Amino acid sequence: MKYRVGFCQFQPEFLAKEKNLEKIANMVNNAKADLLVFPELATSGYSFAHISEVAQIAEPFQKGLTSIVLKKAAWENKCSIVVGFAESDNDKFYNSSMLINPDGSSYLYRKIHLFYHEKKFFSPGDTGFKVYPAKHDVKIGMMVCFDWIFPESARTLMLNGAQIIAHPANLVLPWCQQAMLTRALENRVFTITSNRNGYENNQGVSNDFTGLSQITNAKGERLLQANQTEEFTGIIEIETEDADNKSITEFNNLITDRREEFYHS
Amino acid sequence: MKYRVGFCQFQPEFLAKEKNLEKIANMVNNAKADLLVFPELATSGYSFAHISEVAQIAEPFQKGLTSIVLKKAAWENKCSIVVGFAESDNDKFYNSSMLINPDGSSYLYRKIHLFYHEKKFFSPGDTGFKVYPAKHDVKIGMMVCFDWIFPESARTLMLNGAQIIAHPANLVLPWCQQAMLTRALENRVFTITSNRNGYENNQGVSNDFTGLSQITNAKGERLLQANQTEEFTGIIEIETEDADNKSITEFNNLITDRREEFYHS
Repeated sequence: MKYRVGFCQFQPEFLAKEKNLEKIANMVNNAKADLLVFPELATSGYSFAHISEVAQIAEPFQKGLTSIVLKKAAWENKCSIVVGFAESDNDKFYNSSMLINPDGSSYLYRKIHLFYHEKKFFSPGDTGFKVYPAKHDVKIGMMVCFDWIFPESARTLMLNGAQIIAHPANLVLPWCQQAMLTRALENRVFTITSNRNGYENNQGVSNDFTGLSQITNAKGERLLQANQTEEFTGIIEIETEDADNKSITEFNNLITDRREEFYHS
Repeated sequence: MKYRVGFCQFQPEFLAKEKNLEKIANMVNNAKADLLVFPELATSGYSFAHISEVAQIAEPFQKGLTSIVLKKAAWENKCSIVVGFAESDNDKFYNSSMLINPDGSSYLYRKIHLFYHEKKFFSPGDTGFKVYPAKHDVKIGMMVCFDWIFPESARTLMLNGAQIIAHPANLVLPWCQQAMLTRALENRVFTITSNRNGYENNQGVSNDFTGLSQITNAKGERLLQANQTEEFTGIIEIETEDADNKSITEFNNLITDRREEFYHS
């Protein structure tokens, strides 16, 4: 199926949730896409200094402002949206992403591999690497930022049937964009890494984000990439079935050639 | 420990085992290395048209001519050697590699993921991804060529304690050399991909090998690379303990951050 997918690389304003959500909704309105992926913690910014800041903007899945605003945007634009947000659930916070569909359905992923100071503020994710249906029943796997360095993340999503890996990110290390070509190649899946750009400083907690958001095809080729520093919406049309063909040669298939009995689990 | 490691990229002569072994022994004599890695099927060439050709040059592990010749070379040069060879065991053939040490010890790996027409001639490997001691007890994991595309290969070797992944290859696809940077990075291991160069044609079975043999450090950086077409011995001194530090940040470690309960096994 022909499917218009994209990322919105931008610079969220720290703790300004309503303003960030307005900006995100505007980007959805302008994109004319079937699937749009936004960065990690796109509604809040990243550089927390105190847990009270997380508490200030965290919200429950499906009942918070992000869900309300973006369900409307998804419905009005017939666009599935993946967005990173700070989730609250009882007394815990998660670095989460949600998939919101035009039909009102939505799905949650809680980041499994937390990076650096995130461990001070967020609980490790417990939702697993599941695959969910987006618009037109295209199969979406979500992983967030640092999950990329563990090959098991993308592998599990592929084995669970993902056609597209939606990858919200706030990258500060230099290696991910290149490694995602390998993730796409070894799994024959599309990948959309939606990174943020810009420098953020909050009470001495500072981060310089690397931009370079990208879309790869299922052969591990980069189709489109933003630059390091500027806000940019990148959209391209893909053929989703390309991710269903796991053949490498007429004798080799990436799934049936696996020999699990020899793998460390 | 400071350790001189290298690859010998060369063009074996098809089915000329004695001549190839003489050449390999000469390369060991000239290299002054602690560990040298030779290509896949380095004693025989690759482009088999009939199983009778495999039968003609296949040999048992530890009792064949390759073991005899290279044990001598390993002992005389105080050099551990990894070399790909066609193995016979009763009525089966394997696309194997062996590690031969200066003290006379030797270890076997049978290629687990066979590529393309190899499936017509060789049985799938059954030795698993084990780790063996080379000179000075440095921990070596072996994988052969197409094993690279399955992240579980290098991952299993790392989790079993490999410091260096020795990777004999006869590559014809264009992606491996780049992907091996990801294998090194995601596992924090050294990798030595020893590819062959040259065009080979046997009765219409032809292959154009990609050369570009390389050594990476444990941070996923390429230290040294051959060109595409020429024979070349590449040697560099590494610090083997660099592979023992799996920290990415003071809060992140590639082993202890793994969350196996969420991985597809």
